[in-house]
Amino acid sequence: MATFSDRLAEAVARYGPLCVGLDPRIDMLPKAFADLPPVDAVERFCLKILDLVRPYCGVVKPQAAFFELLGGGGFEAMDTVLKLAKEKGFVTILDGKRGDIASTATAYAEAAFGPTWDADAVTLNPYLGSDAIEPFLTIGRKTTPARGVFVLVRTSNPGGGLFQNLTCEGKPLYRHVAEAVAKWNDGQWDVGAVVGATNPAELKELREAIPDVWFLVPGYGAQGGTAADVKAGYRADGTGAIVNSSRGVVFPYHREDPNWELQVIAAAMKAQAELR
Amino acid sequence: MATFSDRLAEAVARYGPLCVGLDPRIDMLPKAFADLPPVDAVERFCLKILDLVRPYCGVVKPQAAFFELLGGGGFEAMDTVLKLAKEKGFVTILDGKRGDIASTATAYAEAAFGPTWDADAVTLNPYLGSDAIEPFLTIGRKTTPARGVFVLVRTSNPGGGLFQNLTCEGKPLYRHVAEAVAKWNDGQWDVGAVVGATNPAELKELREAIPDVWFLVPGYGAQGGTAADVKAGYRADGTGAIVNSSRGVVFPYHREDPNWELQVIAAAMKAQAELR
Repeated sequence: MATFSDRLAEAVARYGPLCVGLDPRIDMLPKAFADLPPVDAVERFCLKILDLVRPYCGVVKPQAAFFELLGGGGFEAMDTVLKLAKEKGFVTILDGKRGDIASTATAYAEAAFGPTWDADAVTLNPYLGSDAIEPFLTIGRKTTPARGVFVLVRTSNPGGGLFQNLTCEGKPLYRHVAEAVAKWNDGQWDVGAVVGATNPAELKELREAIPDVWFLVPGYGAQGGTAADVKAGYRADGTGAIVNSSRGVVFPYHREDPNWELQVIAAAMKAQAELR
Repeated sequence: MATFSDRLAEAVARYGPLCVGLDPRIDMLPKAFADLPPVDAVERFCLKILDLVRPYCGVVKPQAAFFELLGGGGFEAMDTVLKLAKEKGFVTILDGKRGDIASTATAYAEAAFGPTWDADAVTLNPYLGSDAIEPFLTIGRKTTPARGVFVLVRTSNPGGGLFQNLTCEGKPLYRHVAEAVAKWNDGQWDVGAVVGATNPAELKELREAIPDVWFLVPGYGAQGGTAADVKAGYRADGTGAIVNSSRGVVFPYHREDPNWELQVIAAAMKAQAELR
């Protein structure tokens, strides 16, 4: 059975590093969805996006917040989207940035990797330390096929440095977290790092510091990172990173544009070509 | 209209600082619930706990992970529990430890404080900086009645110090986070700090460092913190903190015990008395 890293590598080899973020913000959906009940609108929109981007990316990342906003029905839609994405052959990353401990972390891990969401990977927050990561590894490594996690290391938001860039015992906090990621990864390539595209110098520094972990790189496109910027996160052979675009691929049009689907296709094609 | 802090203060004045954590772990529910479908079991159990503890605590904290584990139906149950808790007069804290940015944080905040969950407060993770906190304040302060947040500062888990205790530019990371909490709070008492009971010296230090913020203190009871330990987090007049107990109050019995309800009542009474 292929490891998580094998499946990710295969997706990147076939489609390139583009990961499409599914952030179904109800007020940005194309007009055609405006008259549907919100849960239906979000679900149908995401399923349509999966079809449109299928030739151009191998990884999709649903953002839990936008489903949560719609309550229980929204989570049913998230379930449908995750499972259909898997059926279509995408590697799925559930972006929930969970961070809790002990039996609570175990419950999140069982939800993420068990029948509830059945995602290939989840994003995690490291502030609570190893206790917030290890339950996901324990469960992810014994699930078939094995699952992965991506831990926030250096994020792409303007204020991300407030704590992440503090100098702690001789190096930035994010370096401590990066080194912990490498330790949790333990050569298995199933613990990745989230490292933003908006500071290419840090991206390059981290690529050198922890060469043996996957990077999930947000901040490309709408957040300002260019294709050249994100490539600082690739290994010399062009692998080792996936690059997320949410708004840039999913919302490149005006809501009223009848040709919105073509614009999604064009944006995904362009991103795929740029990132390779 | 009462502020968030007023409502919390009133609950503490009337019932004492006990907050009961609703962590409905399906494998620990009393035998009487074993034959129900999991979603029904969790919902009915939580509603029963609300009735049992009503005389002894003014604040309840549902833990999102255990509802998430049951998928969309689990979130419907969480919704029912949150809204019934509010009807019964509890202050409700949704424990999701969310941490995201920009429109994603806004979606989480709209979910937390809008019709979806309508919670009085949520727990947040600070690793992404101000961008992860401010959308909750923007929305929480304009909602009627106004809402609050509790930001993780120093957590009670055994490995919580891995990053939180690093010395960063002259002081522990958790002190930097505590000072940011005081700044976000800005004298409004609606940005609290999560500070664990398992290290009373740090709890005392933080109480002195940021006297004007509410503390949510986990780690009392099952995690090893005593009533004397947690009191280091109170202000001199005995206010300013709420103390969470989850397992200690909710699961103090064997699953087969026919008198499990009496044991919940006894545990809640004891905790209420000890913590005052």
